[in-house]
Amino acid sequence: MFELHPTLAKDSLPIIDDAAFMIRLINDARFPWVLIIPKRAGAQELHDLTPDMFDQAMRLSERLGRVMKASFKADKINTAAIGNMVEQLHIHVVARSRDDAAWPAPVWGSGPMQPLSDAEADRRITLIRDGLADPG
Amino acid sequence: MFELHPTLAKDSLPIIDDAAFMIRLINDARFPWVLIIPKRAGAQELHDLTPDMFDQAMRLSERLGRVMKASFKADKINTAAIGNMVEQLHIHVVARSRDDAAWPAPVWGSGPMQPLSDAEADRRITLIRDGLADPG
Repeated sequence: MFELHPTLAKDSLPIIDDAAFMIRLINDARFPWVLIIPKRAGAQELHDLTPDMFDQAMRLSERLGRVMKASFKADKINTAAIGNMVEQLHIHVVARSRDDAAWPAPVWGSGPMQPLSDAEADRRITLIRDGLADPG
Repeated sequence: MFELHPTLAKDSLPIIDDAAFMIRLINDARFPWVLIIPKRAGAQELHDLTPDMFDQAMRLSERLGRVMKASFKADKINTAAIGNMVEQLHIHVVARSRDDAAWPAPVWGSGPMQPLSDAEADRRITLIRDGLADPG
């Protein structure tokens, strides 16, 4: 049975939770940063997904990248499945700006997360939900 | 017209070069590390690819991850499209080991590359070519 890894649960806030995927916002004011977590128990690598879930996960990451680039006026989207610290498969989609706290380095290993205010968390979650709901 | 970015050309060696994609080996002895470069002029983000090329690129990255995990007896595959330094779209697939030079940090920003010997470059290129050619 699928259960969200406690580290991912602790570090992020729910955006969408459907039958196949969770989409969650990392609780870090420095970067608009989202995780896609496929609900497949035991999956650690992208190739542990069924072909169907893999295609869905990739299209979701592409769609999130497009939405986040526009919504957060990002200079670049960083998309990655790493999982060296938390083995449960999760895909990062991060909206980067040339003036953000880590540029041009990646966000992983860029220092401690800075918790979001409730208002900023709500703003980001709403932008992402609305962007995903927009058929454009 | 598509032309390989000079930084990517300088840092990597050819494995496969077909009509739609280049697959290249990063010239770094520390990690088995491959780039997929879709031959689409001007593409910087995954969502700049046509839907067809996107699906092909994702399947290729999944396949490379599977092949590299087995061929290099990796503990984890890291897959990422970052592009903060080199804007031409390229997807990293890296075979990681718990005892490698950067674990558990990502390879990006992990210090200077250590050039491969010709023999080790050949060995890696052959393992990847053979793995991709294997229908299993």
